[in-house]
Amino acid sequence: MVIALITDFGTRDYFVAAMKGAILSVNPRAIVVDVTHEISPQDAKSASFTLRACYTDFPPKTIFVAVVDPGVGSRRRAILVETNKYFFVAPDNGLLSFVFEEEKDYHVFELTDKKYFSQNISRTFHGRDVFAPVAAHLSKGVETDKLGREITDFVRFKTDKPRKISENETEAEIIYVDNFGNLITNLTKNDLPERFVLEIKEIIIEKYLEFFAQARKGELFMILGSAGFLEIAAFKDSAKKILNVKAGDRVLIKKVK
Amino acid sequence: MVIALITDFGTRDYFVAAMKGAILSVNPRAIVVDVTHEISPQDAKSASFTLRACYTDFPPKTIFVAVVDPGVGSRRRAILVETNKYFFVAPDNGLLSFVFEEEKDYHVFELTDKKYFSQNISRTFHGRDVFAPVAAHLSKGVETDKLGREITDFVRFKTDKPRKISENETEAEIIYVDNFGNLITNLTKNDLPERFVLEIKEIIIEKYLEFFAQARKGELFMILGSAGFLEIAAFKDSAKKILNVKAGDRVLIKKVK
Amino acid sequence: MVIALITDFGTRDYFVAAMKGAILSVNPRAIVVDVTHEISPQDAKSASFTLRACYTDFPPKTIFVAVVDPGVGSRRRAILVETNKYFFVAPDNGLLSFVFEEEKDYHVFELTDKKYFSQNISRTFHGRDVFAPVAAHLSKGVETDKLGREITDFVRFKTDKPRKISENETEAEIIYVDNFGNLITNLTKNDLPERFVLEIKEIIIEKYLEFFAQARKGELFMILGSAGFLEIAAFKDSAKKILNVKAGDRVLIKKVK
Repeated sequence: MVIALITDFGTRDYFVAAMKGAILSVNPRAIVVDVTHEISPQDAKSASFTLRACYTDFPPKTIFVAVVDPGVGSRRRAILVETNKYFFVAPDNGLLSFVFEEEKDYHVFELTDKKYFSQNISRTFHGRDVFAPVAAHLSKGVETDKLGREITDFVRFKTDKPRKISENETEAEIIYVDNFGNLITNLTKNDLPERFVLEIKEIIIEKYLEFFAQARKGELFMILGSAGFLEIAAFKDSAKKILNVKAGDRVLIKKVK
Repeated sequence: MVIALITDFGTRDYFVAAMKGAILSVNPRAIVVDVTHEISPQDAKSASFTLRACYTDFPPKTIFVAVVDPGVGSRRRAILVETNKYFFVAPDNGLLSFVFEEEKDYHVFELTDKKYFSQNISRTFHGRDVFAPVAAHLSKGVETDKLGREITDFVRFKTDKPRKISENETEAEIIYVDNFGNLITNLTKNDLPERFVLEIKEIIIEKYLEFFAQARKGELFMILGSAGFLEIAAFKDSAKKILNVKAGDRVLIKKVK
Repeated sequence: MVIALITDFGTRDYFVAAMKGAILSVNPRAIVVDVTHEISPQDAKSASFTLRACYTDFPPKTIFVAVVDPGVGSRRRAILVETNKYFFVAPDNGLLSFVFEEEKDYHVFELTDKKYFSQNISRTFHGRDVFAPVAAHLSKGVETDKLGREITDFVRFKTDKPRKISENETEAEIIYVDNFGNLITNLTKNDLPERFVLEIKEIIIEKYLEFFAQARKGELFMILGSAGFLEIAAFKDSAKKILNVKAGDRVLIKKVK
């Protein structure tokens, strides 16, 4: 059974190792996979996007453990989400909003049964003391309703959607900047008119390509990326550096004839 | 059987992969886990702290392979430490000092039997040629006393302890700075008076919290961290940056009424 | 069966996780190992070197998946290389040149049978949609000639070799700079006269050591490194920083009496 981890812990400290140790102590046969641990500190939104971009690639029954948790130790709840195909264990802080958006049918449980936590629970590291052991017990076949009680008032943040601001203009935003400096917008294929240009920081980008190597080196262009969103890219260069933009920045789609 | 690796090799080069390949070549069923490979080059002390902070989270019989090894190829010895619950394979340079401090009952063996090394042993990369294959053979059930002879004159460095410098003052130090910029001191619960303030770089910190979210953003405070030590933190900010301090810097605990 | 991944994707985004998910979806029993994901973007040459430096440490039948792929989505082909001992899956862009050089006997197949790809193939992420699933099917026992047709006109770049430029001088180059700042040249033991000095950036290095700890701190010296090449190093310091050099820079070996 695969347990996939996504956190903002970085890979330099003992945090991720402690979680893996805690998982393997409960279920030595768990297959632990890292999604990433390089989410910017406390950036639940990026974690949510990252998870959304890859969770459907994993095998059925994969348990995702997502820990971006500035509220650790406070009264924020710990939750388990069960969909038709996957499990997600996370703090109840909106981190799973993109998943809630993708999935139609799911159940959310508040994790309350301390039997499935570590024996000593710190107030600063629930990744190790709550989320990891719960995921490990789940991977051994413990049923979801044993772990806590179903709830409906979980936290879910509004995932920003493109919005039409005039007949020919749609306002959207950069939701993620990847390692190559590609800018991922919140625009999907359905948000795009047949012919359009994109405006960002008073620069107009007209070129829309099907794959990277169609571009000249350093040239800015649009492309439908592998996560299903429109991206702004620069072949063998960083669109982020060229445009000096960041997640949250605004883009404008303008219909052309 | 879990084999957990901690090195200063970084994850950009072929070093870690070579070690994993060497382990799996001997025991294809070994479960290899990374503790971290981002120990600062040659910083055996940070490696020792990191290991101490998470090794007890791992399942019994876990074999830790710790390679921070500026003396590779010289006459420094390679050792295996066996405790009641775990194994540690490392160069004999003090890297395991924190483990020696935590454990009461252990045996140390010098690794001498070349049968369990790689066939060709380089003088620059014992991680691949000595430590990895020895750990892999151990994970297959080779007994510890087959791997070498027991020794008692292994290297162990003094782990710095807080010391009382007057009736009301205890001098301590920062032993580690984590990825979030939290400053981990060498003070445990037992070193702390009932009421106290902490002085660092002529700044007095009075607030002592139980969990992070109790603080205001950017506010400096003390907290008992998940590794069991007093930490100086700043909620959603980096205490390291605010205070401009580093491992080795001094802190002062002052008793108050 | 081990599947070892080397890419330029970095570890911050969802790319590597998507590949691992795709592999485990096809073969949940695959043992996935990271070689590295920190190859500089589009640097096929460094990827080639890194692979060469560690692939022989892996167990027989290991499947290496190498994705440094600026041509993704274009007409560049996807290939599988089968040697006596290993498999390599990669874009046909020269990435495996060092492997072709090391191995005498190998077969190259163009990956054409879409049955072994993902159902929906993006034009921007063949790591997830082509290379990962092909490797996973291979790890389950699908035969190589089922995956595509054998070809001989695959891309192979000239791996730069040292060349004698006068009776007493050999010109060579830095082919890789590692995490410690050690400079790896393309000179093997066979390229070196009995007694010699090395010139780099008008600096003469005379010292040739057998292991690192023989040097004084910060002193520049030559050493035969663990990848089998002559390296320029500085004990507990970075030769890269001291000399301010990079991959591609020239070195000169001068025979001395």
